[in-house]
Amino acid sequence: MDERAAVGILPSFVRGSWWTPVEAADAADVRDATTGDLVARVSTSGLDLAAALEYGRTAGQASIGALTFHERAMLLKQFAVVLTERKDELYALSARSGATKADSWVDIDGGIGVLFSYSGKARREMPNSRVYLDGPVEVLSKDGSFLGRHIHTRLPGVAVQINAFNFPVWGSLEKFAPAFLAGMPTLVKPATPTGYLAEAFVRILVESGLLPEGSLQLVSGSVPTLFEHLRLGDLVAFTGSASTAAHLRAHECVQTGGVRFTSETDSINASVLGPDAVVGTPEFDAYIRQLVTELTSKAGQKCTAIRRAIVPSEAADAVIAAVRDRIAERIVLGDPRAGGVTMGPLASLGQRRDVLAQVAKLEAAGGVLVIGSTAEPEVTRADGSTGPAPDGAFLSPMLIRFEDASADAVHEIEAFGPVASLLTYDDVEEAGDLVARGGGSLVTSVATHDPEVALTLLTRIAALNGRVLLLDRDGARSSTGHGSPLPTLVHGGPGRAGGGEELGGIRAVLHHMQRTAVQGSPDMLTALTGVWHAGATANGDGQHPFRKSLAELRIGDQLASASRKVSLQDIETFASFTGDTFYAHMDEEAAAANPFFPGRVAHGYLLVSWAAGLFVDPDPGPVLANYGLENLRFVTPVSPGDRIRVQLTAKQITPRESDEYGEVRWDAVIRNQDDETVATYDVLTLVQKALTTA
Amino acid sequence: MDERAAVGILPSFVRGSWWTPVEAADAADVRDATTGDLVARVSTSGLDLAAALEYGRTAGQASIGALTFHERAMLLKQFAVVLTERKDELYALSARSGATKADSWVDIDGGIGVLFSYSGKARREMPNSRVYLDGPVEVLSKDGSFLGRHIHTRLPGVAVQINAFNFPVWGSLEKFAPAFLAGMPTLVKPATPTGYLAEAFVRILVESGLLPEGSLQLVSGSVPTLFEHLRLGDLVAFTGSASTAAHLRAHECVQTGGVRFTSETDSINASVLGPDAVVGTPEFDAYIRQLVTELTSKAGQKCTAIRRAIVPSEAADAVIAAVRDRIAERIVLGDPRAGGVTMGPLASLGQRRDVLAQVAKLEAAGGVLVIGSTAEPEVTRADGSTGPAPDGAFLSPMLIRFEDASADAVHEIEAFGPVASLLTYDDVEEAGDLVARGGGSLVTSVATHDPEVALTLLTRIAALNGRVLLLDRDGARSSTGHGSPLPTLVHGGPGRAGGGEELGGIRAVLHHMQRTAVQGSPDMLTALTGVWHAGATANGDGQHPFRKSLAELRIGDQLASASRKVSLQDIETFASFTGDTFYAHMDEEAAAANPFFPGRVAHGYLLVSWAAGLFVDPDPGPVLANYGLENLRFVTPVSPGDRIRVQLTAKQITPRESDEYGEVRWDAVIRNQDDETVATYDVLTLVQKALTTA
Repeated sequence: MDERAAVGILPSFVRGSWWTPVEAADAADVRDATTGDLVARVSTSGLDLAAALEYGRTAGQASIGALTFHERAMLLKQFAVVLTERKDELYALSARSGATKADSWVDIDGGIGVLFSYSGKARREMPNSRVYLDGPVEVLSKDGSFLGRHIHTRLPGVAVQINAFNFPVWGSLEKFAPAFLAGMPTLVKPATPTGYLAEAFVRILVESGLLPEGSLQLVSGSVPTLFEHLRLGDLVAFTGSASTAAHLRAHECVQTGGVRFTSETDSINASVLGPDAVVGTPEFDAYIRQLVTELTSKAGQKCTAIRRAIVPSEAADAVIAAVRDRIAERIVLGDPRAGGVTMGPLASLGQRRDVLAQVAKLEAAGGVLVIGSTAEPEVTRADGSTGPAPDGAFLSPMLIRFEDASADAVHEIEAFGPVASLLTYDDVEEAGDLVARGGGSLVTSVATHDPEVALTLLTRIAALNGRVLLLDRDGARSSTGHGSPLPTLVHGGPGRAGGGEELGGIRAVLHHMQRTAVQGSPDMLTALTGVWHAGATANGDGQHPFRKSLAELRIGDQLASASRKVSLQDIETFASFTGDTFYAHMDEEAAAANPFFPGRVAHGYLLVSWAAGLFVDPDPGPVLANYGLENLRFVTPVSPGDRIRVQLTAKQITPRESDEYGEVRWDAVIRNQDDETVATYDVLTLVQKALTTA
Repeated sequence: MDERAAVGILPSFVRGSWWTPVEAADAADVRDATTGDLVARVSTSGLDLAAALEYGRTAGQASIGALTFHERAMLLKQFAVVLTERKDELYALSARSGATKADSWVDIDGGIGVLFSYSGKARREMPNSRVYLDGPVEVLSKDGSFLGRHIHTRLPGVAVQINAFNFPVWGSLEKFAPAFLAGMPTLVKPATPTGYLAEAFVRILVESGLLPEGSLQLVSGSVPTLFEHLRLGDLVAFTGSASTAAHLRAHECVQTGGVRFTSETDSINASVLGPDAVVGTPEFDAYIRQLVTELTSKAGQKCTAIRRAIVPSEAADAVIAAVRDRIAERIVLGDPRAGGVTMGPLASLGQRRDVLAQVAKLEAAGGVLVIGSTAEPEVTRADGSTGPAPDGAFLSPMLIRFEDASADAVHEIEAFGPVASLLTYDDVEEAGDLVARGGGSLVTSVATHDPEVALTLLTRIAALNGRVLLLDRDGARSSTGHGSPLPTLVHGGPGRAGGGEELGGIRAVLHHMQRTAVQGSPDMLTALTGVWHAGATANGDGQHPFRKSLAELRIGDQLASASRKVSLQDIETFASFTGDTFYAHMDEEAAAANPFFPGRVAHGYLLVSWAAGLFVDPDPGPVLANYGLENLRFVTPVSPGDRIRVQLTAKQITPRESDEYGEVRWDAVIRNQDDETVATYDVLTLVQKALTTA
């Protein structure tokens, strides 16, 4: 009783303030994974979930909706900075969950890294507005007066994020970042065993004062009635077991209510040793290193961990020996707070019981434990002594060999701990079939230096995996590892892996938005998207648009240049100056024999160079630089005697949040004397926000 | 009995041959919508569905998988051509379903148009290979030795397409085209009332001899056990009622088996008349024209039809009067085979009963029939006479006015026929809220010439619609119409609309593929994708790659140019020749004051022009033209005295199926004397497949 009285109920953060139950006789206890000490008590007794969700849909949508993508991205960076400043607090708590320093790094620095990554990616790849364009303009009428465009706009509800216990910080932040960028408020529900870590990072963010109102709510504890309150426009992102995912997905709000549901469930991931990766090759060594890492890091409690090591029959004994040696060399099991420890306990005694039960099932199905044991291991204690630790959830790393690779159990049963099975194959096709038996996985890795082996396997298994990692001598040293989801790569997989897609850069932001096809006139599409569409009204008021700062420049501001005649002499001068004496410019007969040219024609590079001469404004002004071109197409050749002119229209304006300038994309069209389109492209410039007093 | 004996059982096409039941006592009768004559009898009694699916997964996957995206696209075009040649047969059958000539055009020519559209789009936007790349390279290590890339590969199963009765040809082909392009075999299950039309187009395709083995199977009749045979890798694309969709989606194979399920269900679509679109404006007229079209075309049996006309309170009477007038002017109800008829019957008497039942519910909920009647209408008969037609499923167009716009029924009940409700609003926000009450729609249209009105509405409703059409004076004449899904635009919508996405160009192809993140060394990614990745082995064997035809050229063939020194005189010559006298090139002091330049620098256009001079091979050869550039970025400025050189590497090769040449994309990097990157871009060229004997 004393112990419990000393540990308060873990607060929730809802409707803008911290909340704890008035009465919590039902509170669940959360204990230190190594010592069994009470860390936290958890209860949501009396919490008004419906009100919390409605608060997100109103206050949260309003506050994040007021920000542009880049403003949201800048906040993500600031969140990352304040979490970095206080990450020691998180590391101290993380050790209580059984995580070693390296495990905590993945969770805490990994989570902060996701915020930095998304902040940068959003500012590079998204517009500084609230509507994200998808794909090109679709011209729907011959005269161009009716166009189509796909846009993404945020879902109008709350992103409910239900997380697993193994990565309480990373698992939350990797979902929060894209939701926040999209403009959706988050309600996060951590797993109870490590909810105190989620509470800690939310507290840091709340105390920073940076969170827009309602943008992040935290529910510490169970939420059995949550789905009753969800409706169209809300989204659920679930991480956890396949059976819980199935249960949640079956709810009416998902089935017929239009609530978007994505899930990332642990899967029976495979790692294949290629037939070429024999003992002594860099690929064999890389395979062994990776297998031991995945067995032991986070005590194997990773959705992405290797559960099936699939190796050539003749290599099985060598693999077992090499894994055994490496574990003996590298792995020190113990209290994460003790020096030298490289592998901690599981998150809880309950988790340990579950893993042992699954190991027993694998053994019953024909598996033979060839490395490790189910007995209570000797471990390094906090004080540096070694011996048993009965209050800690320790397990030694285990490798289970299956003589019969086709046994159902090995492809279906997951022991969510430091446990993998070893299967053998005789040819590459069989290896692919074994991978496929997993019924859809988050990730499969393949160690091979033979592109044929890689291609054969990929063709068979790509569509059954969310990620495939190829390990060879060229990339092995810099490989980010089988078990590491990255913010730039999709995380999730089909079938057993849950069918969801998280991360993957801006793709994950778009999962929080609705794609809509919008049809209308060029003026309407310009007004709705903030991007100028060909055919829309332009403003050619006589002032050179390069003389306007971002404060003055408007979408549609246009320059129509004078025209300039191209002579044969010009073409020859350009050829001689550049060295580009391609026959289409130099030899009338040969040029005329080319299917695309009427005879000698001007260089495409001459045309765009002259166009710049026609549109550039020479004096210092707000336009700082032309930093690139996009989508340049030469449409009609220009013959000697033709005249060209260029039309330049401000198409998209992207002010930078962290600089005194921004990007302006100009629609450029070069036309000839007959008004035919000669070339089209986008000119990319950097333009000052305001005129400097020069 | 005589009538039934004369009409055989409609065949299915499975496992490569036509199939009819041995016994079919259970066969369902299908009757002419106008005359009630027996058209077909339908039964699948004894059909081995499991075998049909397995045939698709084996023979179908093998035969389509042997083709590249462009080869599949060429076949789609040939399918379109053979269907066009025999479309009279389809038109004759279509009239039996109650479709007028205009209705049949939408179904038959519309369906053929989808094939043409996808054929062209795939050849323009997809590579001529079997793997589709998604997004840019993600560099995962500082030294570039470990990369990530997202690829799409086809699902390994069968695309099961369950279609609605209203568009038997278009509805099948719009699903078949993207599945076929992706490389998935199709098993199509048409709706029984118009299955004879699907059977007819499948027969034409089978008779053409063009279909790859197993690429298209047809099941004519009901398939109650179908879902029991589906598994991970299969896909279901369903069109029909929301309740059937919910029933099918609930099947275990979808919920936990990983079968991908998309649905497009009819929804309570809205059309809003903007407050500015008063009587006398072009927008008012366009709104009325569109509303009457949607009420009457296909007798209102369209998933995308307008069910809710949402108009300003003060405009309601004018709208009713204008709709009434236009119906009186334009609409002639009758046998589609009779001259002058502009609106046919519903598809069946059963359909008519359903619609009347829904109308009764709307009336009971407060709706008042202000146009049309539920009574049996007078119609034009096949012989030109007018009068009642008791065997035909005729209904007159109906508009039902709701004084209480907030009544649940009007936002929930769909009468799938020539029926719309009229609701009124007082301000634009209210109009948006009313649209949202539909709970997710395929499409909403808005008639307004005021961008503010459009923007306010779009912000509220975009995420609740798959498509939004804006009707104004500029685009109204060329508008493709509220009710018309287009192959280039996404078709589908959230919530009530089923949550699916069809069409939308290549997006729909990707719905049949799995996106996978692939990680590995540059050489591995090059081997797996067929696209050269920076850092991969290159072949600089001394032969200029521009001298190689596509038959000889390989990914990775590389040219490293000589270097060339840029002098101040060169910059001045270029400025004078092009007219580009921007101060960064001409004025040392002003240039140095610019944040990006150390002083006077060379024009970016000079650099790419010189680069062409450095890499071009002047004599006639397999490279026919440089038709464009992509992704040009100027990275490091070039000062007088610097030397530049260019490296050009064959990155992607796309032979054209219908020409003697193809596209080659070259990776171009300009570097300076210190090996710093000056500029990066892709050079796009057209290259002959084989060397011509010149």
